[in-house]
Amino acid sequence: MIGGDATGMSAASQARRMRGPDELEIVAFERGRFSSYSACGIPYWVGGDVTGRDRLIARTPEEHRARDIDLRMRTEVLEIDVEKQRVRARDLGSGAESWTPYDQLVIATGARPVHPSLPGAHARGVHGVQTLEDGQALLDTLAATEGRRAVVVGAGYIGVEMAEALLTRGYEVTVVNRGAEPMATLDADMGRLVHDAMEGMGIAMVNGAEVTEIRTDGEGRVRAVATADAEYPADVVVLGIGVQPETTLAERAGLPLGGAGGLLTDLAMRVRGHENVWAGGDCVEVLDLVSGRERHIPLGTHANKHGQIIGTNIGGGYATFPGVVGTAVSKVCALEIARTGLREKDARRAGLQFETVTIESTSRAGYYPDAAPMTVKMLAERRTGRLLGVQIVGREGAGKRVDIAAVALTAGMTVEQMTTLDLGYAPPFSPVWDPVLVAARKAVGAVRRGGA
Amino acid sequence: MIGGDATGMSAASQARRMRGPDELEIVAFERGRFSSYSACGIPYWVGGDVTGRDRLIARTPEEHRARDIDLRMRTEVLEIDVEKQRVRARDLGSGAESWTPYDQLVIATGARPVHPSLPGAHARGVHGVQTLEDGQALLDTLAATEGRRAVVVGAGYIGVEMAEALLTRGYEVTVVNRGAEPMATLDADMGRLVHDAMEGMGIAMVNGAEVTEIRTDGEGRVRAVATADAEYPADVVVLGIGVQPETTLAERAGLPLGGAGGLLTDLAMRVRGHENVWAGGDCVEVLDLVSGRERHIPLGTHANKHGQIIGTNIGGGYATFPGVVGTAVSKVCALEIARTGLREKDARRAGLQFETVTIESTSRAGYYPDAAPMTVKMLAERRTGRLLGVQIVGREGAGKRVDIAAVALTAGMTVEQMTTLDLGYAPPFSPVWDPVLVAARKAVGAVRRGGA
Repeated sequence: MIGGDATGMSAASQARRMRGPDELEIVAFERGRFSSYSACGIPYWVGGDVTGRDRLIARTPEEHRARDIDLRMRTEVLEIDVEKQRVRARDLGSGAESWTPYDQLVIATGARPVHPSLPGAHARGVHGVQTLEDGQALLDTLAATEGRRAVVVGAGYIGVEMAEALLTRGYEVTVVNRGAEPMATLDADMGRLVHDAMEGMGIAMVNGAEVTEIRTDGEGRVRAVATADAEYPADVVVLGIGVQPETTLAERAGLPLGGAGGLLTDLAMRVRGHENVWAGGDCVEVLDLVSGRERHIPLGTHANKHGQIIGTNIGGGYATFPGVVGTAVSKVCALEIARTGLREKDARRAGLQFETVTIESTSRAGYYPDAAPMTVKMLAERRTGRLLGVQIVGREGAGKRVDIAAVALTAGMTVEQMTTLDLGYAPPFSPVWDPVLVAARKAVGAVRRGGA
Repeated sequence: MIGGDATGMSAASQARRMRGPDELEIVAFERGRFSSYSACGIPYWVGGDVTGRDRLIARTPEEHRARDIDLRMRTEVLEIDVEKQRVRARDLGSGAESWTPYDQLVIATGARPVHPSLPGAHARGVHGVQTLEDGQALLDTLAATEGRRAVVVGAGYIGVEMAEALLTRGYEVTVVNRGAEPMATLDADMGRLVHDAMEGMGIAMVNGAEVTEIRTDGEGRVRAVATADAEYPADVVVLGIGVQPETTLAERAGLPLGGAGGLLTDLAMRVRGHENVWAGGDCVEVLDLVSGRERHIPLGTHANKHGQIIGTNIGGGYATFPGVVGTAVSKVCALEIARTGLREKDARRAGLQFETVTIESTSRAGYYPDAAPMTVKMLAERRTGRLLGVQIVGREGAGKRVDIAAVALTAGMTVEQMTTLDLGYAPPFSPVWDPVLVAARKAVGAVRRGGA
């Protein structure tokens, strides 16, 4: 296994469950200091909701070794030789290099931050939040910094989660975002709801602003984030501008990459054209079942599934990963944000014609205490009425409602079929018509009116 | 429309939306004093979470009349004459009776409580909670009663919700339950979790106890609930022992009833064999899509859907109700209880062989604050691995997770298909493997081991 996080170690653990040490030797290389940790938890650790880095570690190197997995920490793989079935690795401590042969290779190299090639991007006080090391470095900066002005660059899910974390810690937070609205994984009309809610929380939101420079003081410490039009003073800067597949090794080895730079695999997670090379997690592209296209969707939940599937196949079993529908959920303070399937522009790019509807409802019966408003947007294919996508923005109870649509998308349901779904109803849980059903009913009307 | 609540008035409203008063005259008869109200909300009104009866009324008689629906309150239909297409109704105020002709008839007579034929069942201080009138009478009793001992007879969803309501109001609550465990809509092993949690809330739980008598004092007021073995002192008694279809009129008119006493309809909600008679809501039986059998499932969410469908069909459109998968969700204080599909005994009765698994997980990532424990039980068909049912008991975040399984059941998914469902993941919303997926993975193993 190249990579000791979600995919690599899930694969190792699952293969070990199926094959004992007499049958299968497992070696895993991890260049960092931590194994099997939840990068998704970093914002909550930084924000103080999660106390202590170790809580984010699902399984330590020692625990893996106790299961007869030879996990080599601080050891970086420098080269894959698919011809001779071996990898060259360097012990980052001693500097020693050696070749290790394999019968089966798992590439689980994850993703790396998209670093802006900007003056000052590597100044002191500027942090990514990709790894536990990054999180620790940010916390060290926060502890050592007196000023309370934080700028978050990027307004995707990492950006908004970090905005919450810094707000929770008492910072004045500015989010500088290239897009027209935050959360570009939503359509702009739904992103606007997020924008308004974040402003309501006291976060300064700057949209449509490309960062041109990160300015430093005489000692190399960040002092401001500059755009073409303005300058935003900053004592700390968090870069939440997304990631790309870490496939440098794979590319050099001649393995097939897709349009987003991720490895391409078959349904069993085998790298295409390579019988004994497997890949999963943030370094691969996955099939989007709704658009029929390959996409790069770095998410811990997919990485874990990939590892499970690879481990099963290496262990002599059989499992496949059919693809994704593009479900994602996040929150910023009390605001919950969820999406699944296609946005309007995804649908157009896929050649689909569609109707869109947007409805307002509540998380509980309207008369029940704490019934919270929720906006649901739904896309349905023209003529067929097939569900294409759902976006939800609201308060408590909004986020996980997207799962209803995620399962319906996977099943290829029409919005008309959805109107009679037998969903859980009681006043503390839902209005008598669940918000997703209300949207489906309206979408049925739109499809009918849309005609042939 | 016979009946002015969810089904009748949804049908009326939908038909009116499609056909103006020039095209369609709509008359609705309601024997009670309230129209279009949420009976499901009564426990929360009694408990004080919902302030004021009027909040439970979705639309008043005046509002219906303003939409050209001739809603006649306190008017009871006494006879249906399907031959001559007319109904005989009595104005309960004046006592006047008259015949009203129809072209289309909608029977939406709801359900009635299963009243035990027990001595004392109609004593003062003994209440059902079926109608708003019932709720008001109970509140009047509570206001007038000094004693603080309440006994709830029955431990289905109404029983447990009323136990919460009375506990919230400061009563010492005893629940006397005929079944081996509370919540007979769950398997007993899951019901036991509810039992333990309710005891932990300070509710005295008595299982396996048939009530033999409700004992009164010299003035006809309740003083105790007696079983074969014991007597439970009571200042107030709530009967939560379920309902049966109110089909007296329909039966007299010769309309077809099923094994549970509910009207039988086709998929368009037309009473079988009667071109222009429709029925829906708590007075009909619905097709259980998992077992292939007809069942009586009185729930507001079905009643509203039926009304919508009937109204569409009467209005000249086309809509059908394919059936249910048996989803239900309820709560008692912080405990959430959900189920969908078949219990073990349902599956056996349907002739199905199956595997069952039970897992423990949490509502959020384990390291995230307020991650609450959750138990998920899953049934999968032997050999095929088709999902048959899910039961969930847990804290916040447990209940509505059942919707994932409800949609998967509707789509006929196997547990293996479920393991790769693309559900919303982020630490505040779910562990990286959603509890439903953890159960599905375990079920896959059980089906494999179960073999041919």
